[in-house]
Amino acid sequence: MQKTKLHVIKIGGNIIDNPEALNSFLTNFTSLIGFKILIHGGGKIATKLAEDLGTETQMVDGRRVTDEKSLEIVTMVYAGWINKSIVAKLQSQKCNALGLSGLDGGLIKAKKRNPFPIDFGFVGDIIDVKGGDLTQLLNLGYSPVFAPITSDDEGQLLNTNADTLAQSIAMGLSSDFDVDLVYCFEKKGVLKDSTDENSVIPIINQATYETLKRERVVTEGMIPKLENALLAISQGVKLVRLCHADDLNDANKGTQIKA
Amino acid sequence: MQKTKLHVIKIGGNIIDNPEALNSFLTNFTSLIGFKILIHGGGKIATKLAEDLGTETQMVDGRRVTDEKSLEIVTMVYAGWINKSIVAKLQSQKCNALGLSGLDGGLIKAKKRNPFPIDFGFVGDIIDVKGGDLTQLLNLGYSPVFAPITSDDEGQLLNTNADTLAQSIAMGLSSDFDVDLVYCFEKKGVLKDSTDENSVIPIINQATYETLKRERVVTEGMIPKLENALLAISQGVKLVRLCHADDLNDANKGTQIKA
Repeated sequence: MQKTKLHVIKIGGNIIDNPEALNSFLTNFTSLIGFKILIHGGGKIATKLAEDLGTETQMVDGRRVTDEKSLEIVTMVYAGWINKSIVAKLQSQKCNALGLSGLDGGLIKAKKRNPFPIDFGFVGDIIDVKGGDLTQLLNLGYSPVFAPITSDDEGQLLNTNADTLAQSIAMGLSSDFDVDLVYCFEKKGVLKDSTDENSVIPIINQATYETLKRERVVTEGMIPKLENALLAISQGVKLVRLCHADDLNDANKGTQIKA
Repeated sequence: MQKTKLHVIKIGGNIIDNPEALNSFLTNFTSLIGFKILIHGGGKIATKLAEDLGTETQMVDGRRVTDEKSLEIVTMVYAGWINKSIVAKLQSQKCNALGLSGLDGGLIKAKKRNPFPIDFGFVGDIIDVKGGDLTQLLNLGYSPVFAPITSDDEGQLLNTNADTLAQSIAMGLSSDFDVDLVYCFEKKGVLKDSTDENSVIPIINQATYETLKRERVVTEGMIPKLENALLAISQGVKLVRLCHADDLNDANKGTQIKA
């Protein structure tokens, strides 16, 4: 039986930081037909607030540590300001957005990341997605909009990677829906030549990924993104696409990750 | 036909500002049986954040004006930090809390308050509650937890009075449920003598309210609270009770407002 299509869309921080790009993206999101879920990350607003409050950002091995004060800041900015600003905009366009964080309704279960060998502080790893409960909300006509804040069984709030949250939600709903997971960012896709915006690689699969990695065409931040995408595909997500936020509604644009 | 009971509970800022009182209240909320909705206000956290950010609070006629910066602060604090902290705690106690703001799912419709004669800035007055949609969420087993942030048709976020939000939700659901609206605060009820915590007035109705107001037993902040309560009763809410947060589960404690 043909399953119903569901779009799970993640928007990156660079889009959120640019009001014009965000507005244009949200109009595109509203015009997507059918079931849809939006996951947003943070952007520079949290960093700016931390600076304004004189909070020092702790880094270990080049990665940010979420201490108590940082947790308060990301919860305020992601779950509060960004989430509600996005929902207000979508509602004004008649998109029935329901702003949530991962912890709401116990929809996303997380646990604090093991502090060994590196203690990243109040960072959550996702352990479960209540796909059936999310499906009920979709069936009521809502388009959930998720901020990447989760909590553990003890009620501890946790900062969670938004890319991983999007991937987990896509995988958790793939038995009920025909899921397209789309990562929208400021580039046109995975580029063969990082200096040439027109060198988008149209399709990547496991075999071509290995080659691209070996040849150092994909490096750094793109490696976990693509590995997550390939994992999602292997777990039943129909299609993963990485594209510019402006190209959300054109399924032929960007890079498609396939089995 | 007997309608199903629904508890609509509002907690005041003084409870939110006291972690011990808040924890104890949330345990009481969890143990309430049946359908329930929690509405929380702000407390001093937003004022403290505004101070830390060096933002001046604008006052007109002794009332706070919500300018652009204040709106950002209350949205971060109420919809972000306080709402998610409460939901995380409730979820850890197996209360299936769903943290929302008024704008989510278009559940609460508001409009910006008329700027004449006094411009309070980004302050919202409630114009509609989608009772049927809220009932659907309750029927899925969720206990909605509302932060008092709404938006208008143009997608403008608005700061909204939490007492009024609680009253509007209670009235909006009174055709579907047998609604008890409970205002939990740091006093034992409406006091005959403000210096004596044991002078709680057990029952107030329209007639006794008029007398209490004339005799200046109730003054200032208690006047709008009681007028709202009497309005709620006249609009189909079964019972309004004002009590100490510790007395939530004892229906005989506090002041009952009746027709």
